[in-house]
Formats: sequence, structure tokens, C-alpha cells
Amino acid sequence: MLKAKTKNISIVLYKPKYAGNVGAVARAAKNMGIGDIVVVGRRDFDDEEMRQRSTHLAADVLDKIQYFDCAEEALGDFNYIVGTTARLGKARGPFLSPRAAADEIADISQKNKVALLFGPEDTGLANDQLRLCNSVVTIPTSREFTSLNLSHAVMILCYEIFAASSPITSTEVTPKLARSQELEGMYGQIKTLLADIGFLNPENPDYWMLHLRRFFTRAGILSREVKIVRGICRQLTWYAHHKKT
Amino acid sequence: MLKAKTKNISIVLYKPKYAGNVGAVARAAKNMGIGDIVVVGRRDFDDEEMRQRSTHLAADVLDKIQYFDCAEEALGDFNYIVGTTARLGKARGPFLSPRAAADEIADISQKNKVALLFGPEDTGLANDQLRLCNSVVTIPTSREFTSLNLSHAVMILCYEIFAASSPITSTEVTPKLARSQELEGMYGQIKTLLADIGFLNPENPDYWMLHLRRFFTRAGILSREVKIVRGICRQLTWYAHHKKT
Repeated sequence: MLKAKTKNISIVLYKPKYAGNVGAVARAAKNMGIGDIVVVGRRDFDDEEMRQRSTHLAADVLDKIQYFDCAEEALGDFNYIVGTTARLGKARGPFLSPRAAADEIADISQKNKVALLFGPEDTGLANDQLRLCNSVVTIPTSREFTSLNLSHAVMILCYEIFAASSPITSTEVTPKLARSQELEGMYGQIKTLLADIGFLNPENPDYWMLHLRRFFTRAGILSREVKIVRGICRQLTWYAHHKKT
Repeated sequence: MLKAKTKNISIVLYKPKYAGNVGAVARAAKNMGIGDIVVVGRRDFDDEEMRQRSTHLAADVLDKIQYFDCAEEALGDFNYIVGTTARLGKARGPFLSPRAAADEIADISQKNKVALLFGPEDTGLANDQLRLCNSVVTIPTSREFTSLNLSHAVMILCYEIFAASSPITSTEVTPKLARSQELEGMYGQIKTLLADIGFLNPENPDYWMLHLRRFFTRAGILSREVKIVRGICRQLTWYAHHKKT
């Protein structure tokens, strides 16, 4: 059985509101062997409150939290981003159960940096952040009360990853996926090209781009494939300009 | 799979120390459809602290907590008692994983009252309480840090019980993939375009095409996505010719 490489997995908290929750997340993550936390969009947490909830045994996780101002920057180096949402209507699927996601992550984490992305306590992730995700997990809950505490949601996903192992008989391990940064560069280039040739409606350029983004993130495009796509775009752009003159 | 009768399941907290944890347990339990909490050996919890962590949506769970002075009295009415421990040496087995216990509980809860028994935050259950249990669960953790927050331990077990009884793995349904015919039409169109703009080596046009084919087949491209790609190719071709003249 193949175990997830927890060293390649990080918890990314997007704009968490409460210091206590950040501490509780650190504890939950470390219980399940995950030592890296990234916090986006806030840094002014009450230290004592965080440490009280992490307990001193997870203090090292708090000490090495990495702070970023925006999601794109925080996620740039990751190859695979797993979003979380309670609202099925908000994002487009496929939505994975924590268990199905854990199986996938156990495999992908062998050769790729994986981010588990969680939104703010009150609103969860918005479409702007969900768009960056390769897959989206929803944790099943009772219909009566669907809102999970942030650290409880983190715990369930980390627990499933810890418990998961994929059969080693499937010798095929996911090769190196493109990093988020590479993808964003590619999307920018495609968007410019499609606007140039009049394919994108200037009033709503993101409509078609969203379809393309969905396809590429679902597809799990490799780093070397991004280079091919960008090479094609470059050649198309060159050709278009060349023919103009 | 048989759905657990959550109405027959109660969380029994033996001498919990922190009001905040009792509140967090109420929230976790209700998230997973369990509404009954029993507290043994203490009743003087700070109400505000409990309610803050339960959120108002689980206030009803707090309102109907049953308090008892000793474990024997609290557990007297239950048919099946599931203990929890982190220390395998302490109690005699068999020790169940949360998943194995959840399967058992889903079955037993159909006709029996089930107690999920959790010990104090610092020491866990002692032999005196473990002796009352029909089975004992241990939650797997990293060896580096085995001590779970009380509400996290409750959440994992409740989540497994909830997951055992709902068809959570079937949320993902693969939508309509493109037919081979559609794919071949798309490849032909891409090949023509890439040859037109000088991206493909005329002596070996299939080299890059092979990379693209591999990517698209691995990706599992949808019928509607093939239409988008073909639309883009058409526009690119039109643009190229339009600019020529």
C-alpha cells in the first residue's frame, strides 16, 4: 500500500478570521502528520490564542506558518490544489468526497506539491479561489446543520489522507503536474491570443476562459504540456502579427 | 449500505475539563446528525463559552444535555457502548478503527441505543470506564503527536458513522465524453491549423500531434469542450486568412 507523502502536502487557509481556529488547525494537521500551514490575507493573529489551541506540541507548526497577501502568490508553487466547499451550487463539479479526494491525493502527493485550500469561517471559498482548484471536496453533513468548524473540516480531510493508501499495484504514479504559476501564465497568454483574434467577447472575456480553465485543471496538465501549449500560442501570435504587416 | 439510526446514538463525555470543548462537541455531533449528548461527572461549565463554540445552530443540543454523576448511571440505559482510547496498552482489545466501528454501529444502532464514550482531555478513559465498553476504537494518528482535541476525536467518529450510512462516493458522475469521431475531427483541424502557421515540422507532423493526442485522451475531454476547441481553431484559421488578404 502506498501512503500519502505528507511532506508534500500543505494546509492553505484563505483569510481565516479566528486565531483559535488557526491554532486548532495546526494541532489537527500535526496529529495527521502534516506540518505545513500557509495563511493568506491576514497576519495579525493573537499569538497566545493560537498557541493555546495548538498546544505546545504543535507549536513548531505555528512557528513556520508562511504568510501571503494573495491566493495566486500563495498557491504559485503548488502542482495540485484541492478546494473545499459546503455549497454545491457555488462551484461546478466534480465534487469529491473526502475519501475519494484522499485516494487521489495519496497518489498525486508522491511527486507533486499539494495544497488543501480552506476558505473563511463565515463565507467559505468564493469562485475566485475555487477557479484555481484542480478538484473540489465537499464534506458530507446532516442537512440540518451543514456549517463545519474550520478545524473540524481540516481534521476530516487530513484524517482521510492519513487513513488512505492506494494499492501499489497501480504502478502508474501521476507525473509532475504544472505549477499554479505556470498555469496562470498559460491562461494569460491564451486569453490575450483569443482576444486578439476576436474569439473572446471583450465585455465578458472570462466566460470562455472559465470553460478552458475547467478543462485544463480537470485534465491535470503536465509541466511539459504547458510548454507545448505556450509554444503554439507564441507561434499563433507571431503568425498573426507577421501576416498583418 | 445500512444507514445508521443517529437518533439511537449518543455522545457520552466522561469528565470533560473545558466548556469550549463541550460546545465544539455539540457542533460536531449535530453536523453529523447526532443530537444527544450526555456529560458525566461535571455540570459547572461556563455557559457563554459553551455556546460560543457550539454556535447558535447547535444551541438545542446544549439545551438538552443530560448530566450524570457517575458512568454506570449514565450508561445504564444503553445497549452498546463504544469506548475510545489513544493508548493501545491500556485496555484489552479488540481495537477497532473508526471505519470498522462505524460499520458496526450503523448496524447495531438499528435496534439498539449506542453510546460513544470519550474520556477527559488530559488522561482519556481509565480502565474503570473501558471495562464498561463493548468495543474500543482508536483513531490512527501520526506517531509524533497522538493527542487529539476532544471535539476532533468526536468529529472523526461521528463523520465515519455518517459516511458509513450515506452514498457519499457516488457524487461524482462523469459527464458525456467526446466520441472518437469528434476527437478525430478535432485532431484533423488542429493539425491543419498548426501546419498552416508553421508550428508542425512538415517532415514529421505527427511528433507534436502525438503529445496533444496524449494530453486530450488522458484528460477525458467532453463533447462540449471539443466544440469549444474547434470553434477556437475555426476562428484562428479565419483570422489568419482574413489578415492575409
